Amino acid sequence: MQEADVVIYDWLSSPDLLSLVPAHAELIYVGKRAGIHTLPQDKINQLLVEKARAGLRVVRLKGGDPFIFGRGGEEAETLAGEGIEFEVVPGITSAVAVPAYAGIPLTHREFSSSVAILTGFEEGGKKESSIDWEKISTGVGTLVFLMGVTALPRIVQQLVRHGRSPDTPVAVIQWGTTARQRTVEGTLRTIVELVNAAGLRPPAVTVVGDVVSLRRKLRWYESLPLFGKRIVVTRARGQAGRFSERLRQLGAQPLEFPVIEVLPPESWAPLDDAISRLSSFSWLIFTSANGVGFFVERLFAQGKDMRELKGVRVAAIGSETSVALGQRGLK
Amino acid sequence: MQEADVVIYDWLSSPDLLSLVPAHAELIYVGKRAGIHTLPQDKINQLLVEKARAGLRVVRLKGGDPFIFGRGGEEAETLAGEGIEFEVVPGITSAVAVPAYAGIPLTHREFSSSVAILTGFEEGGKKESSIDWEKISTGVGTLVFLMGVTALPRIVQQLVRHGRSPDTPVAVIQWGTTARQRTVEGTLRTIVELVNAAGLRPPAVTVVGDVVSLRRKLRWYESLPLFGKRIVVTRARGQAGRFSERLRQLGAQPLEFPVIEVLPPESWAPLDDAISRLSSFSWLIFTSANGVGFFVERLFAQGKDMRELKGVRVAAIGSETSVALGQRGLK
Repeated sequence: MQEADVVIYDWLSSPDLLSLVPAHAELIYVGKRAGIHTLPQDKINQLLVEKARAGLRVVRLKGGDPFIFGRGGEEAETLAGEGIEFEVVPGITSAVAVPAYAGIPLTHREFSSSVAILTGFEEGGKKESSIDWEKISTGVGTLVFLMGVTALPRIVQQLVRHGRSPDTPVAVIQWGTTARQRTVEGTLRTIVELVNAAGLRPPAVTVVGDVVSLRRKLRWYESLPLFGKRIVVTRARGQAGRFSERLRQLGAQPLEFPVIEVLPPESWAPLDDAISRLSSFSWLIFTSANGVGFFVERLFAQGKDMRELKGVRVAAIGSETSVALGQRGLK
Repeated sequence: MQEADVVIYDWLSSPDLLSLVPAHAELIYVGKRAGIHTLPQDKINQLLVEKARAGLRVVRLKGGDPFIFGRGGEEAETLAGEGIEFEVVPGITSAVAVPAYAGIPLTHREFSSSVAILTGFEEGGKKESSIDWEKISTGVGTLVFLMGVTALPRIVQQLVRHGRSPDTPVAVIQWGTTARQRTVEGTLRTIVELVNAAGLRPPAVTVVGDVVSLRRKLRWYESLPLFGKRIVVTRARGQAGRFSERLRQLGAQPLEFPVIEVLPPESWAPLDDAISRLSSFSWLIFTSANGVGFFVERLFAQGKDMRELKGVRVAAIGSETSVALGQRGLK
């Protein structure tokens, strides 16, 4: 991400990741929000080839894992066919991450020793499911359906018709792993009604199996003190990280929205002038860590350094300012 | 990891991660190498509770994902039962990461739209498989078996007996995602013989399904220029990272083994003495970035800072040394 020239990203790729991209990189959104494809797959493939051919380092950023219903295989095939080198960075598929954040282990000695990952009916606009309901309904302990909200009634109907007990626990998790996470729990008999009543919409992950019952004990994420809060962090970019991290640990989802931007002044002349006659000052007072940074930059620009401050007394306002001075060799 | 007081880790957890742990943290290996359990599961549960009760921040580090055959569910249940707070950090299960590194997408529009993750027979010493072979053999597009080397003959036999074509492509990947990765490809008919001939041993992941055929085009990892090389990096800890990262990008597996350790001298007296009469020197020559660090530390310890160097000329040997001086306010 940090070395990307171009990032081609999907709807569900995390905005936090986009903040890693260098300022010069081109960001291209190619969508794929349930049903709404900003760019069809063959155009995405073509875009990847074009950008790579132009000698650019291209990141194809997806939510989840590229090789689990991510169509990464097709994209990689295109690149391989064109002789373009690539590497694959596996990710945590929502089929794993979302149940974990809902407190549902996909396998458990007492409840399930197999797990299958399937898509709902909607995927790619297919009318018919390619799922072998006859076998899958009772042949696997835990079933995870990606994108299964509108398809839920049909999924439930098929599973029950093919022998899965109507009392099997089911959880549908909307916007899992984010502050918007909402979980509806029920059984194959009750879940459709409960999900309708709750008004859940995509993106959602559906988990079917006895492991869902463990959620009652293991719902750790939803129990965090700041769970469900989205908190706008207004600090300047580059200074927001530590605070955001703290919020995240407490269960909140920080949204970094810097309303402060630290910029150079319109003219350096007054500062440069003061620097040119530093020894005429008794005190040098820094009001912020940013001020320290700019001062040193201009000092260096004149071919000078901290040695020039001999005889000048230095003060810092605030402990961060003091730390910034210490890092630059001043007490 | 960086805030851990105790790390309780498994056989397959990455050694790279252990290097993130602070020096004061206690590292406890609890094993689970195929069949050899250093500590039985109930003792591990007990250990987690004990350490947490002692007020320590405990990391339970596993290879892969804790909730996919990781017994993380049981451990979390124990903690919940004892009223101990926990969070779950999902990981990339080897069922996903290993095929990706072997160039095998688990799903693909043309080949498979479902994937199941299963364990071999060995898991936990069970004699009988709990797998519903009748249904799983043909009901799921891609089958991923974890820990399936010794069980391979039985897996293959069951799949074919229950209707999976003997011509179905199979890959067995040993030590996937590492420099020791070895992949044997065949079909259900041939794989047992091929794996025996190659002498593959655990840990291994077995992928069964038509998606395996894509590997021919997509084996990106094994094509990297330094693939298969393990390279010992002898630089001092804290300086090895950048070089290791470069090696990793080229496909090598760096092993950080610092043979240089930067330590303070037995006595600071000569340096402190020189610092106390800095103005008597004409030149101050730094030979390394580490030297810069120690000098500034002692300078500050005497209540002085870079201002004291007025009139002393400063030289750096090497560009890193020069950068280190610049960061401390000296040209």
